[in-house]
Amino acid sequence: MKNNKIGTYNFVAEPFHVDFNGKLTLGVLGNHLLNCAGFHATERGFGIAALNEGNHTWVLSRLAVEMNDMPGQYEHFTIRTWVENVYRLFTDRNFAIIDKDGATIGYARSIWAMINRDTRKPADLLNIHGGNITEYICQSEKCPIEKPTRIKIEAKEETATLTAKYNDIDINGHVNSVRYIEHILDLFHLEYYRTMRIHRFEIAYITESYYGDQLKFYKEETGNGEYSVEIRKNNSEEAVCRSKITYKQPAPEKEDQ
Amino acid sequence: MKNNKIGTYNFVAEPFHVDFNGKLTLGVLGNHLLNCAGFHATERGFGIAALNEGNHTWVLSRLAVEMNDMPGQYEHFTIRTWVENVYRLFTDRNFAIIDKDGATIGYARSIWAMINRDTRKPADLLNIHGGNITEYICQSEKCPIEKPTRIKIEAKEETATLTAKYNDIDINGHVNSVRYIEHILDLFHLEYYRTMRIHRFEIAYITESYYGDQLKFYKEETGNGEYSVEIRKNNSEEAVCRSKITYKQPAPEKEDQ
Repeated sequence: MKNNKIGTYNFVAEPFHVDFNGKLTLGVLGNHLLNCAGFHATERGFGIAALNEGNHTWVLSRLAVEMNDMPGQYEHFTIRTWVENVYRLFTDRNFAIIDKDGATIGYARSIWAMINRDTRKPADLLNIHGGNITEYICQSEKCPIEKPTRIKIEAKEETATLTAKYNDIDINGHVNSVRYIEHILDLFHLEYYRTMRIHRFEIAYITESYYGDQLKFYKEETGNGEYSVEIRKNNSEEAVCRSKITYKQPAPEKEDQ
Repeated sequence: MKNNKIGTYNFVAEPFHVDFNGKLTLGVLGNHLLNCAGFHATERGFGIAALNEGNHTWVLSRLAVEMNDMPGQYEHFTIRTWVENVYRLFTDRNFAIIDKDGATIGYARSIWAMINRDTRKPADLLNIHGGNITEYICQSEKCPIEKPTRIKIEAKEETATLTAKYNDIDINGHVNSVRYIEHILDLFHLEYYRTMRIHRFEIAYITESYYGDQLKFYKEETGNGEYSVEIRKNNSEEAVCRSKITYKQPAPEKEDQ
């Protein structure tokens, strides 16, 4: 029963999915986490395909990832995922990332809403599909990282601007969630990644952006390797998404056995 | 024996790997093709890890992909790959892409060299590893698409410019082969992809580019949905890579059974 609540998925860090340090990029890890959410939900009857029949879809609201290490090139790793809580309008889904030796190297938390595809209005998770998502709530599994926090940005001047292009756009016509992560991490200089690694990455998805939108990045250093980034589009003051990144110095390399 | 010469690998088209039409992007397909090349070579003892011991590595010189269709979101597909020829300085590796129903929807051809990692000089493929790569030559398998061609560009003015960023850079410190494909396809307007699909994509990798390099894209329409693109870096006249793309109107949708 417990096993049925937790989904376990295996991956390998592909050559074009690692950065210049030979470590899996956070964008690719984010892609895998979101895929695992999809696999887990589909296998239990509350995936996007099942919901589409009722004209509903999942929308990712927040994601927080905290890593002590990242899989190296060609290394196998595992992602486990489970539903921690279901509320009327949101559900909390957690993840653990396990390295090739079976050590947990990180965790992630995500918050999802379900909306009606036509009205874009939120659906009641406790009533959809007979509330059967609640049968999969798993609170025995721990996810010892802070919940997604409220991100505030004071920056008045944009650090960078880019136009959303063909490869940024997903099947819904929106800039895809993973591309935002990549564009945000591209704001930092390669040299910074030589001495610092991403310890925690948080993102709140607020509104959609589309092909041709001019995305403006407002970045702010808040001390101790912490940065906040807000993306706005075109001439709007409204945030498309907000992110908080905490960099740390890498731990000393483990010696090979 | 024949089976051992051909590697067969299964994939699924993930949600963040399809474009706004719900079809696998060519960049992601390229990534899968190059991974399959790696899997196939590794399983037969001439992969990068084995070569690194002798301080050699594979370098992709050319890739040509011709597709009649692309896998749709969540669809399973298969890539088969084999070595067609081995010459002293180059080897030809081919691919077939098979859809969920077992129909071959496309082919690809690639040309690889092997270089010494220190001197960057080409190695003799017929002598490396006792020439054992030649044992895997498979000429019974057909790859009915044109070989990579010579690409010429007349354009004098760049169409677009971008600076190579953190996520563009691979473990060797170079802009990675897949990112060039994505950046080239991003030169075309989303509306163009609404009515036209990529029938053939060719790329010749000429020299490396690095973090912070300013990449300039020279694009030229040569008629009948054909375009040539050359990427140059910084103020150099030298090409980093050249590409030729042929767009066609999509075939009418097959009716579901």
